[in-house]
Amino acid sequence: MLATLAPRIERVAGKLPRRVFVLTSPEIWALWGGTFLESFREEPIVLFLPAGEKYKTIASVDKLLRQMVRAGGDRGSLLIAFGGGIVGDVGGFLAAIFMRGIRYVQVPTTFLSQVDSSVGGKTGVNLPEGKNLVGSFHHPLAVFADVDVLGTLPGRELRAGLMESVKAGIIRDRGLVRYMEENADAVLNRDTKALEKVIAASIRVKADVVNKDERESGLRMILNLGHTVGHAIEQVTKYKVLLHGEAVGWGMIAALYLGVKRRALTRDQAMRLERLVHRYADLPPLKLSVKRLAAATGADKKNVGGVRRFVLPMGIGNAGVVEDVTQAELEAAISYMLSHAKGPRH
Amino acid sequence: MLATLAPRIERVAGKLPRRVFVLTSPEIWALWGGTFLESFREEPIVLFLPAGEKYKTIASVDKLLRQMVRAGGDRGSLLIAFGGGIVGDVGGFLAAIFMRGIRYVQVPTTFLSQVDSSVGGKTGVNLPEGKNLVGSFHHPLAVFADVDVLGTLPGRELRAGLMESVKAGIIRDRGLVRYMEENADAVLNRDTKALEKVIAASIRVKADVVNKDERESGLRMILNLGHTVGHAIEQVTKYKVLLHGEAVGWGMIAALYLGVKRRALTRDQAMRLERLVHRYADLPPLKLSVKRLAAATGADKKNVGGVRRFVLPMGIGNAGVVEDVTQAELEAAISYMLSHAKGPRH
Repeated sequence: MLATLAPRIERVAGKLPRRVFVLTSPEIWALWGGTFLESFREEPIVLFLPAGEKYKTIASVDKLLRQMVRAGGDRGSLLIAFGGGIVGDVGGFLAAIFMRGIRYVQVPTTFLSQVDSSVGGKTGVNLPEGKNLVGSFHHPLAVFADVDVLGTLPGRELRAGLMESVKAGIIRDRGLVRYMEENADAVLNRDTKALEKVIAASIRVKADVVNKDERESGLRMILNLGHTVGHAIEQVTKYKVLLHGEAVGWGMIAALYLGVKRRALTRDQAMRLERLVHRYADLPPLKLSVKRLAAATGADKKNVGGVRRFVLPMGIGNAGVVEDVTQAELEAAISYMLSHAKGPRH
Repeated sequence: MLATLAPRIERVAGKLPRRVFVLTSPEIWALWGGTFLESFREEPIVLFLPAGEKYKTIASVDKLLRQMVRAGGDRGSLLIAFGGGIVGDVGGFLAAIFMRGIRYVQVPTTFLSQVDSSVGGKTGVNLPEGKNLVGSFHHPLAVFADVDVLGTLPGRELRAGLMESVKAGIIRDRGLVRYMEENADAVLNRDTKALEKVIAASIRVKADVVNKDERESGLRMILNLGHTVGHAIEQVTKYKVLLHGEAVGWGMIAALYLGVKRRALTRDQAMRLERLVHRYADLPPLKLSVKRLAAATGADKKNVGGVRRFVLPMGIGNAGVVEDVTQAELEAAISYMLSHAKGPRH
């Protein structure tokens, strides 16, 4: 797919404009830049964003926008975001605000970005006060996901990305939950057929939910299962310790605990799902303060009007949103999570 | 109007949310803050943007977004942009990208922002490389313009703002041109009736054009009469010497010259309109290099696909866009403009 990208883009965007920008990371470009360029008659202008959440900032956006102006970018320019979720989020945001909006396409290279962040139109960056607090809704013209690229993805990143697939199963697709339980070895060994099955099912859940509610006024919120506590962990650890998917994995464990307390699912169901999280993710112990994590959930933008919203699994393949989680419940869920690094106790 | 703002906003936005932000300048707030607050039961959170184009930057946006997070802003928050064009552009952009978009209203306090920038949904900031190169389309829920506030507006700013009304007349409303010719004293002396007449006609032109073409794919471009050269002047003088309207006034003189050369209007029509520009604006001589100004037009984002677009008046009350202005024509127009500081020669 990657070697034939230019004509594929032209099929959705028409003739390529005078200035085509590629936002990528140095690592991805070193591995795949040659293949990427094969189908372009005129070489696009390559912009680099160093890898890591710490570069997902307004300062990076500022610098990149200036590079685009100096390279002759204009309103007709097209941007290709070629990389993982951070490249996709920043690239989409650049496209959203450069000259008040230009067209872009996503070419995600990680499992996580293929199944999750490239779909849905959310773009943006972090503030020191919290993750993804700044951004736009700006949909790509198209998403081109090449499963072959995942061959070079580090195992830890694959496992972290699979947390979003586990999440997709829990909230909306019990068939996916069962498939992931029964085919864990094949998926983790990157069997192409197994990966395609999981990726396709995950994208289907995401696209289905987003189509019904782009702006997260209702249904889309269920995609945030595990994210309230997950974001709090990332924030408290300054985005340096865990991958996003790992933080979401932890957050799902807290959410499963709360789900049981609220009788939204049975203890057996929760144990089964907690095992699934641990089967895929490698979650070493976290030494963090319960109070500090609980406080950090407050700055999460999923809270509207000061109400702390929380996504709870409801059985397997369904989820709902509650708004009345108390401080005590939240702290109990976080305590449970912190004591369950090595899998469910039973 | 200003003293009854809160119920007026509630009429369009529903009950005011927990966090209402006001973006304003220290000067405006010192003059009008008391009146502004009269109708609010709960005091909104006031954010300050210092006056001046040099603060219309990504750095200011970064700082303000962080203040909004720390003050407890969330997706349900509402922002009120209370000030001139820069406050409106920056406030609209904050609202566009804070938590991927919150609601806002415009309360413009300058003539220019009342007749022009508050209408149309364009928001954004400058880069060192050029003006308004970054931003979003994000429409306010409503625009509340209080003519009484103009009483404290410095005369120079009123004159600069009136350039946009002159522009509105030239491109779309010959009746407005005639009214402004015949009632210049009343308008400049801030006769309420005369001002209301000019403001209403100017807004009508803007709203009419934007309704037909929000994204500037065609018709909306005529609103940029005078802006290609105007932006170049602002950029070369680092936004420190002229007000925006003054730069547009200069740019219109260059555009009138080009219009005559292209036989889009007669020399007599051009002289009449040039006199109108000078009747309202105070344009002292500019000591700038023709070549440098011509080069600076290249970074203007109104150029798509490398083509330099130029808005030309066509008679009085009409305008069109040409794409084939040569370097020689551009330089001749800029030379003419630079030699006409003291009004048309004849």
